[in-house]
Amino acid sequence: MENFEFFNPTRIVFGKDTENKIGDILKKDRIKKVLFVYGKESIKKIGLYDRVVMALKERGIEFIEHGGVKPNPVLGHARQGIEKAKKEKVDAILAVGGGSVIDEGKTIAVGAKTKKDVWRFFKRQDEIKGALPVYTILTVAATGTEMNENAVITNEETKEKLSISSHHIYPKVSILNPELTFSVSSQYQAYAAVDAIAHVIEYYFSGSYCPMIQNRFIEGLIKTVMDTTESILKEPDNYNARAEFMWAATLALNGLAKLGIKGGSFPNHMIAHALGGLYDLAHGACLSIVIPAWMRWYKDKNPAQFERFAKELFDKNKAEEGILELKTWFKKIGAPVNLQDAGISESDIPKIVDNAYNIAEVWNMKDIYTKDVLTEILKNANY
Amino acid sequence: MENFEFFNPTRIVFGKDTENKIGDILKKDRIKKVLFVYGKESIKKIGLYDRVVMALKERGIEFIEHGGVKPNPVLGHARQGIEKAKKEKVDAILAVGGGSVIDEGKTIAVGAKTKKDVWRFFKRQDEIKGALPVYTILTVAATGTEMNENAVITNEETKEKLSISSHHIYPKVSILNPELTFSVSSQYQAYAAVDAIAHVIEYYFSGSYCPMIQNRFIEGLIKTVMDTTESILKEPDNYNARAEFMWAATLALNGLAKLGIKGGSFPNHMIAHALGGLYDLAHGACLSIVIPAWMRWYKDKNPAQFERFAKELFDKNKAEEGILELKTWFKKIGAPVNLQDAGISESDIPKIVDNAYNIAEVWNMKDIYTKDVLTEILKNANY
Repeated sequence: MENFEFFNPTRIVFGKDTENKIGDILKKDRIKKVLFVYGKESIKKIGLYDRVVMALKERGIEFIEHGGVKPNPVLGHARQGIEKAKKEKVDAILAVGGGSVIDEGKTIAVGAKTKKDVWRFFKRQDEIKGALPVYTILTVAATGTEMNENAVITNEETKEKLSISSHHIYPKVSILNPELTFSVSSQYQAYAAVDAIAHVIEYYFSGSYCPMIQNRFIEGLIKTVMDTTESILKEPDNYNARAEFMWAATLALNGLAKLGIKGGSFPNHMIAHALGGLYDLAHGACLSIVIPAWMRWYKDKNPAQFERFAKELFDKNKAEEGILELKTWFKKIGAPVNLQDAGISESDIPKIVDNAYNIAEVWNMKDIYTKDVLTEILKNANY
Repeated sequence: MENFEFFNPTRIVFGKDTENKIGDILKKDRIKKVLFVYGKESIKKIGLYDRVVMALKERGIEFIEHGGVKPNPVLGHARQGIEKAKKEKVDAILAVGGGSVIDEGKTIAVGAKTKKDVWRFFKRQDEIKGALPVYTILTVAATGTEMNENAVITNEETKEKLSISSHHIYPKVSILNPELTFSVSSQYQAYAAVDAIAHVIEYYFSGSYCPMIQNRFIEGLIKTVMDTTESILKEPDNYNARAEFMWAATLALNGLAKLGIKGGSFPNHMIAHALGGLYDLAHGACLSIVIPAWMRWYKDKNPAQFERFAKELFDKNKAEEGILELKTWFKKIGAPVNLQDAGISESDIPKIVDNAYNIAEVWNMKDIYTKDVLTEILKNANY
């Protein structure tokens, strides 16, 4: 096992009716005024907006609304939120929604505490020194952002989809009620499943040594994601399936799964962000296109681990069989598995490669992920 | 999945040479004076004492020594530590050793911040309102106390071995260097393995519903504990085996493994504490006697889970086979599996039952664990 540090100060409040505790939670932390960040209509449709407003009013907590966060959140809208947060002198961010809402909330939390333009942090030109406290109520389990220190946003002008990581943006408290995810569509459940799986397989495959304790942890999470997704697709209001899926998605990217793994990076996410930046495609959909393609390209660099994956997850003997099984499963649950599925033409590959290479530069991965390599991987995504 | 809350603010610093960071860690938190708690000679033999003293001196951190913690720490010695901590007005507790040292350190941390006698908290007559910050350097991986909110101590006068739980005693930072565990004897490695397994199986079996995500997490940890223990017994300085064992033991009782499980309690620990209080037997040795006996008594209350255990861990079809396999494995690694192994006479059973029943009263478990039931279980521990 490689040396590591682990620290995750997010408090998780999990279960039925837990969103009603938000007033007490904020009051306990002496929060008097929040920027209430949310998406479009979904939290109103499920009655969550009303319950949150009621809980805040009951505890005398002022709130300024910042609705309209897009599914792939954009820098421009986040900047508007930063202005509001500064002008209204809010104490905290309350983000109610899925990964997009929470990531925009985290971005605003950082931007509100600095005179610098927040995009500088995404470009890694500056280091984050502080942020407003962030509280979340999760409505779509997928990204794990409710319990991690990351945020992703798209600069809609430059089509760059980049990320920040800082312990300042670990949410203070995240409320996870599986019932709030009942109305997530089958399409988005499929994307969520792909995202959760992606989170654990990045290091599992790209690391040069994965401790057995982590192999078991990761494989257990993947099995849970797969089983529960199949249940959810048949029965969207299956509480236990939604609950186990939700917790698996949180665990997949809260820092635990990568500990002790030697090396490793997030190449699938890098390339997926290129697709997401260019085509405004859902993150999970970008990943389901990229993952089988990347796996085909990478497998000979870590043959033993790909064989293990095939065996442990699918009871197959060969690396290629494992990759095909995963791709087939993605297809089965309704996620796109090649560029055509997403209506993207092969002639766009050079443009996608350029975008991905820019990310590779920011993420310090361009030594391996040259434009030739990226081209080869994306051509794998075209059959 | 049942509703739950999860919060674990301990920072883990894991790996080779990490003990040398203790000075920087304390300095960063503005700690100026610590009570340096340790056991007997082992930290001096492995050069750890010297390295710690050097690190503290290099950062100008004063320390008052409180050595001599016993393997089953006792209240009297902890009270002496509390006096020292108060008299010397220390800012923090630095506990360097195994679970016993850390638990005594946590006990002192609580006692030093109150006028009340610390034993009141163990008897659950009072609630803990605060504690000095606790920093740890772990030298024996077993109990998980380095990353949890519990401490266990024995009142040597009354022979009661009881516990406290409070978020105030989560260590602020715990340093885990597997190399510091190389000198743990085979005997104590065996006891440690039993303790780690016990921590995850208590709720796994005694809960009325265990989510599949938790089944997989727990079974993965048990497999890791078993594999790595076998490697360690052959090769005590196998870094990777020690490292994976260490992390498995931490994960086994840091709050994660019980989340979402319905019901559940710690009956094996309850009865093991009775043995530990009366006979000063190592905690893991008490558990290896109790666990197979308790499992035999309990299996018909949760047959499906006992069958699952047998299948997943040992590829056996029957509950009884799983229990026998575990008992055999305990024996194989050198842990006692019945009272005679520990030199305890059957005629002592009534005395053990009385002690266990007292704990059951404090832990609110006497409805199920009547004296008759405890007697039946302990008779199971006698073949």
